Amino acid sequence: MRILYHLPLSPYARKVRLVLAEKRLPFELRVEKVWDRRPEYLEMNPACTVPTLVDNNGLVVPDSNAICEYLDEAYPDTGLLGRTIADRVETRRLVAWFDQKFVAEVTRNLLWEKTMKQALRLGSPDGNALRAGYTNLKQHMLYIDWLAEHRKWLAGANLSLADFAAAAMLSSLDFIGDIDWSVAPAAKEWYARMKSRPSFRAVLADRVNGMAPPPHYADLDF
Amino acid sequence: MRILYHLPLSPYARKVRLVLAEKRLPFELRVEKVWDRRPEYLEMNPACTVPTLVDNNGLVVPDSNAICEYLDEAYPDTGLLGRTIADRVETRRLVAWFDQKFVAEVTRNLLWEKTMKQALRLGSPDGNALRAGYTNLKQHMLYIDWLAEHRKWLAGANLSLADFAAAAMLSSLDFIGDIDWSVAPAAKEWYARMKSRPSFRAVLADRVNGMAPPPHYADLDF
Repeated sequence: MRILYHLPLSPYARKVRLVLAEKRLPFELRVEKVWDRRPEYLEMNPACTVPTLVDNNGLVVPDSNAICEYLDEAYPDTGLLGRTIADRVETRRLVAWFDQKFVAEVTRNLLWEKTMKQALRLGSPDGNALRAGYTNLKQHMLYIDWLAEHRKWLAGANLSLADFAAAAMLSSLDFIGDIDWSVAPAAKEWYARMKSRPSFRAVLADRVNGMAPPPHYADLDF
Repeated sequence: MRILYHLPLSPYARKVRLVLAEKRLPFELRVEKVWDRRPEYLEMNPACTVPTLVDNNGLVVPDSNAICEYLDEAYPDTGLLGRTIADRVETRRLVAWFDQKFVAEVTRNLLWEKTMKQALRLGSPDGNALRAGYTNLKQHMLYIDWLAEHRKWLAGANLSLADFAAAAMLSSLDFIGDIDWSVAPAAKEWYARMKSRPSFRAVLADRVNGMAPPPHYADLDF
């Protein structure tokens, strides 16, 4: 059985869960507490990050980008990178935008400060980080709103990995109640379409010990 | 003419320069002072990072990972991702290792603190960052040494993008004299092989205003 090692709020793991579900590739989820640095896990993924995929053939694939590229090569039906070379450039540009820029400017300042840092007893959230995170989030929401207003899907005419990277990122922040959807109506309409996809169901059903998401989190007509 | 917007010490730009040269794709280098946030550049690359490639056909490709994936799709001769699916997984795992983990743990703490931060007048290098950077660099050198000892090239039997990602990263740190090659003899032997490649010549000829690299920097038998 295909196994995905993950943490419930990891946006990178969520992205891969969505991609696996879109490609109708069944998998078993296993929580990996990366901070325990389990020797067997380090052997599979020396960077000790989530997610790591172990495919049916036994191939171990660490890193969400390597996993998504692998899945598109190994299971090319429902290709998610784009048909033309130009589409693929735009998809990968936006995946990097969310996986790196959005994470550095928003996710690390909000999700990390509010959940992981406390869970690992590294102290309470840093006020400057939270302020920077909220300021940056507003700008990012406006950018997503602009993309959603001018294009059918974020990277263009077709649904792509860019939509799943963005939706995964936003879903983790939405879980902790940090997204103000009222400032970005086109982004909200796009996200409602994403949430309605069957691939999103499992992500919306996630519950993390001791934390309940806001009521609109799993509501498809939020 | 193909144009690559870059900064001389950007390891991401160096990686792309090496890849372009390996694929024998001629290009013109243009320095982009990203901190000026030039409107025409922001339009091409809203993340305002280097490198950005403008190919002969006019296609604009931002982000070093998107560029390298694009180049391997558009110019498949001298493929640098690997032949088998398993090879490609290992190449992409290591590219992510250097482009993200190494950057966060080493490059940001050393190269950023010592060059960019001062150039942008954001203050003098932070002692804690430097200490963390050197400690992490030692561990990373041992890992590269281990890879170089057990494999012909870093990702396995064939030269790949992993070698160029790693060599680009190390070359920027070597320019500022931060690499102690004596602790990692196998890594040093591998890096000497990389430096001897014709694609490396232009990178080794780089001079940055007011900064001279240590004598061994461009020496192929260092």
